[in-house]
Amino acid sequence: MKEASSRVEAASRTFSNSLEAISKSKKSKIILALDLDHRRDTTKLLGDAKALVESTSDYICAVKINFHLILPLSLTEISSLNESITRNGIISIADIKLNDINNTNRIATEYLWDAGFSGVIVNPFVGFNGALDVVYRRAHELGKGVITLAYMSHKGADEGFGLELSNRITIFDEFLRRAKKWGSDAVILGTTRPEKIAIARKFLGKKIKIICPGTGAQGGDATASIAAGADYLIFGRAIVDDPNPKNSARQISRSLALKAKS
Amino acid sequence: MKEASSRVEAASRTFSNSLEAISKSKKSKIILALDLDHRRDTTKLLGDAKALVESTSDYICAVKINFHLILPLSLTEISSLNESITRNGIISIADIKLNDINNTNRIATEYLWDAGFSGVIVNPFVGFNGALDVVYRRAHELGKGVITLAYMSHKGADEGFGLELSNRITIFDEFLRRAKKWGSDAVILGTTRPEKIAIARKFLGKKIKIICPGTGAQGGDATASIAAGADYLIFGRAIVDDPNPKNSARQISRSLALKAKS
Repeated sequence: MKEASSRVEAASRTFSNSLEAISKSKKSKIILALDLDHRRDTTKLLGDAKALVESTSDYICAVKINFHLILPLSLTEISSLNESITRNGIISIADIKLNDINNTNRIATEYLWDAGFSGVIVNPFVGFNGALDVVYRRAHELGKGVITLAYMSHKGADEGFGLELSNRITIFDEFLRRAKKWGSDAVILGTTRPEKIAIARKFLGKKIKIICPGTGAQGGDATASIAAGADYLIFGRAIVDDPNPKNSARQISRSLALKAKS
Repeated sequence: MKEASSRVEAASRTFSNSLEAISKSKKSKIILALDLDHRRDTTKLLGDAKALVESTSDYICAVKINFHLILPLSLTEISSLNESITRNGIISIADIKLNDINNTNRIATEYLWDAGFSGVIVNPFVGFNGALDVVYRRAHELGKGVITLAYMSHKGADEGFGLELSNRITIFDEFLRRAKKWGSDAVILGTTRPEKIAIARKFLGKKIKIICPGTGAQGGDATASIAAGADYLIFGRAIVDDPNPKNSARQISRSLALKAKS
């Protein structure tokens, strides 16, 4: 039992350790949200996604892939994209905010791991028993990361994460407890609420990483978020929609590195 | 304004009306969960899914498609499957339990509508403001259905839907209120908790439909659920994993029709 549990713990560190090592080597805290909007014509989507990864890979530590790509592309195409991501020395996270029953979660994540993803974002709302239990177990056997939502970045996030429970804690507090109890590798916490990042950092310690979307289009505060303890920042439209994504990624990465030092 | 709102209301009824008309004509309350597990070899997945629809289409009123198919298949393949579903006189629902910010939700659902889905399942936990607002607006312009989770069928569903809020209502009660306030076309409510179906039926009235997973592998009670007010029942493994899916669908459909009459 002892051997098995330490093996699981060692494997469960793989995702966070990889991310940290890449972040140090590239001197970047940026996770690029590959949110390419090619609804009018998806024929160039895979190629454009690969080109974007190629051009920005010196300034980012990971890529986050959501329905912008997962819906139009087949898993074979996503695998090919993930191979390209790996060749560029970074890792990729599947952002499907998974919240289904265990049978579906198991099959979905097995497809994701086979396709070369290193981590998956899940919604802890759905529960552990008969739902996310299978995701944690298998992910940590394989050294993959399970990332749980803690507080999203949009205005209406209060309608879920901000609800106060009968025991006077909020869903946000409850989700931090779950992240710790269930062994999440990281949590998602919007830069639109830096005060929550400080609370999470204190509660979670250093082992569970804090990944923050919401800077840019949603108006989050990257500087305050880093000061509050954010480990990584997700940028999408600020890089993807820039006429020169490489330049945008480099500038954001340098600016964040300076802020982290100051 | 009056004209606009009645146009929206008329369009918003399209999903429910279609489902009801098909259910009456096929004398079936069954929504088939196309949960084919082809992880070892996905080459025959599309063909097998089409064959399953073809063989069971006389005994089902809709098909529910989740990550079992959405991950491995491209949207072009899913579109081709939906065309085949339409040709067989039934409609299809995308079950991705969508719970993202508005920009991602908008793009995801536009892909789904373009691919021929008639409805989408979303998690109301994520909120309306800056999240699901865009899904309802566009879906109802197009006559598509928005189906919100009310209480899922797995054991750990209590860990989310069962949470008691500081105002002494549960998340389940809150989600029923949202379904009514936001204009959901249907809610998802597990047959594992028929007492909740009775509460939902009373609160929602007849216009918002109640769709129930959880019978079969998860041990839900179809008879009690129909008695409590379930409109449609989702069956997956009980049909998909049967050596003779057509026979299984026919038997379940007849058995439900008898129970509804008695």
